[in-house]
Amino acid sequence: MQSKLPGDQASIFAEMTGLAVEHNALNLSQGFPGFSPDPVLIDLVSKAMRDGYNQYAPPAGHLRLREKISELIADLRGKIYDPEHEINLTVGASEALYVAITAFVHPGDEVIVLKPAFDCYEPTIKLQGATPVPVQLEAPYLQIDWNAVANAVTSKTRMIIINNPHNPGGMVFKDSDLKQLEAIVRDTNILILSDEVYEHMVFDGRVHRSAASYPGIAERALITASFGKTFHTTGWKMGYCLAPKDLMREFRKVHQNLVFSIHHPTQIALAQYLEEPKHYLGLSEFYQAKRDTFLNALNQSRFTYTPAEGAYFQIMDYSAITDEPAVDFAKRLTREHKLASIPVSVFNVNHRDDHLLRFCFAKAEKDLLKAAEILNSI
Amino acid sequence: MQSKLPGDQASIFAEMTGLAVEHNALNLSQGFPGFSPDPVLIDLVSKAMRDGYNQYAPPAGHLRLREKISELIADLRGKIYDPEHEINLTVGASEALYVAITAFVHPGDEVIVLKPAFDCYEPTIKLQGATPVPVQLEAPYLQIDWNAVANAVTSKTRMIIINNPHNPGGMVFKDSDLKQLEAIVRDTNILILSDEVYEHMVFDGRVHRSAASYPGIAERALITASFGKTFHTTGWKMGYCLAPKDLMREFRKVHQNLVFSIHHPTQIALAQYLEEPKHYLGLSEFYQAKRDTFLNALNQSRFTYTPAEGAYFQIMDYSAITDEPAVDFAKRLTREHKLASIPVSVFNVNHRDDHLLRFCFAKAEKDLLKAAEILNSI
Ligand SMILES: CSCCC(=O)C(=O)O
Ligand SMILES: CSCCC(=O)C(=O)O
Repeated sequence: MQSKLPGDQASIFAEMTGLAVEHNALNLSQGFPGFSPDPVLIDLVSKAMRDGYNQYAPPAGHLRLREKISELIADLRGKIYDPEHEINLTVGASEALYVAITAFVHPGDEVIVLKPAFDCYEPTIKLQGATPVPVQLEAPYLQIDWNAVANAVTSKTRMIIINNPHNPGGMVFKDSDLKQLEAIVRDTNILILSDEVYEHMVFDGRVHRSAASYPGIAERALITASFGKTFHTTGWKMGYCLAPKDLMREFRKVHQNLVFSIHHPTQIALAQYLEEPKHYLGLSEFYQAKRDTFLNALNQSRFTYTPAEGAYFQIMDYSAITDEPAVDFAKRLTREHKLASIPVSVFNVNHRDDHLLRFCFAKAEKDLLKAAEILNSI
Repeated sequence: MQSKLPGDQASIFAEMTGLAVEHNALNLSQGFPGFSPDPVLIDLVSKAMRDGYNQYAPPAGHLRLREKISELIADLRGKIYDPEHEINLTVGASEALYVAITAFVHPGDEVIVLKPAFDCYEPTIKLQGATPVPVQLEAPYLQIDWNAVANAVTSKTRMIIINNPHNPGGMVFKDSDLKQLEAIVRDTNILILSDEVYEHMVFDGRVHRSAASYPGIAERALITASFGKTFHTTGWKMGYCLAPKDLMREFRKVHQNLVFSIHHPTQIALAQYLEEPKHYLGLSEFYQAKRDTFLNALNQSRFTYTPAEGAYFQIMDYSAITDEPAVDFAKRLTREHKLASIPVSVFNVNHRDDHLLRFCFAKAEKDLLKAAEILNSI
């Protein structure tokens, strides 16, 4: 049997979480909060089920929720997305990414991906019979070489995928980044897929600059977002996609055949929950404090780092400790020191190994202090 | 922009439900129950959220739920599926169908589809650069011409999709159907995708014969199933796929990149709920009574029909009333008579119009009686 994804393995996230569970290790590998969502939100979901919202939602999503999303984007990003034609709820940002690639990338096309890259982009590109064109960033992955991106563009380039704030790098795009991207795609047919799931987590006074705010990008952008990251509900698989109407029309053709619609009671609940702006603001402060708790406690450590600018991951350089490959070191740390992380090499071109591990700091304070204690001892 | 699904429209289900809402019509179009799930199940989901199951589930699904599914299949179908390697939870059966096709169908392949067919199979085949090869059944779609299926097989045939019980036809496969299918695929590399979402709804003493129970089919089958249909929770989007290990390995490569994992709290709840066998038995009696309530009340009607053998749809022939095309008649019935149905022609080859409408009888008794009253008056 000929595999459509030959060589692909089980996801590194599932693998490292599995290893963490097996060895009873503190799990700072897979990116999910170590704490619960607001009980108010849970109660709203329970109420929506009791109120009878248990059958198919409309494929595009509950209209009131799309309207709330539109209001939020208008407030935060200054761009109006039409709830009727330009917003679609999805099974997490994952499904949004998958559909965006599937709907627009044809066999033989090229898609530019900035490496290290989140692990689902490239298999999805390959499933279309298209070719991922990686542009490798230099460690610690906080700068984008836009000349390299411009040089990677060919007549076959169909899409450029960006991720801002960047996972695993922890980088937040600057105005100059988006202006350079805007210049690269001007007068081309290249689409932008902008994965902005960590949009509400930017630190040290930075602001999130959405693709939505740059007209030359927004006109050709599919933007993916995640309630899972924002409301500590990664296991509920609630995300959405924003795109201009003509792109959204094609997006929906794929989405409706893929899942038809998404979890209905949660949509009802989120539409109500989003009436209170306090529910989505304040995340940057919350996660910056967590990052700082973790980093400040690392005072004895031989790990080195540049503090993450956004998202909820901190990259650590262990070159001063060992020259083991990152995959081996991450596994040994899990088995022997009971601390799980993600080896960044798996996200790089040819698994280039810069001796970096990624730690998720979306965890309770005591877990962050415990993790720092372990790292201090190594 | 070149569409990957040129000509595709919004789903007929969303369209007819939209029209029903707009005209305040009784909605027997889209297939969803007009009643709520067991409050016990709702409470279990609420409890799972309060208990903290709000982050990513494992991509294959909560292990205890896979174990319960394995026990059920062993009890009901006499076949053991390994929970570790042969079962995967999915976002409804829809995602399972999509992934099964995507993982195995290559560009240039052919996939045989029995028409009328549920509307998501063919677009998904086309998205792979493959060709759907339709085999049209004769109205009222209760017999399969297996010679026609055998004749449709070529060296390019990669997969045959079956749907048992059949939507929209209402047909239940007989032992001879599955034996003939088994004979057709013997000594070939053809896979079977068996959509069995209505497995628990078979009437008049019939039994559901799963692909799982035919070794020559099961060895090459991906079987999709739906908790939404079984537990009246179509809006929760909970389904699963069963397949031999070597097929499941490829299935998972696509699934993990598509949605990664599915709604976690509902999986915890279902694992508990399935401890009680009463919770999934008795559906056939329940829906047979609904079918009979509906059909018995149609004593004045000029619509003609053969009673559905399974699933929760009844096909009605309106040739005695008008020769309007089914799409027009279904819309007029919705607008003028406040009763929504699905025109079966949209599921046929070249939209062949046999002057049939499909009515969903998964509705409260009063709605079925009201629908019959409307049909009696036409
Ligand atoms: C989809 S599982 C991985 C979660 C995540 O975004 C990450 O760890 O990078
Ligand atoms: C996915 S919406 C359609 C529900 C259904 O199975 C049907 O009406 O046939």
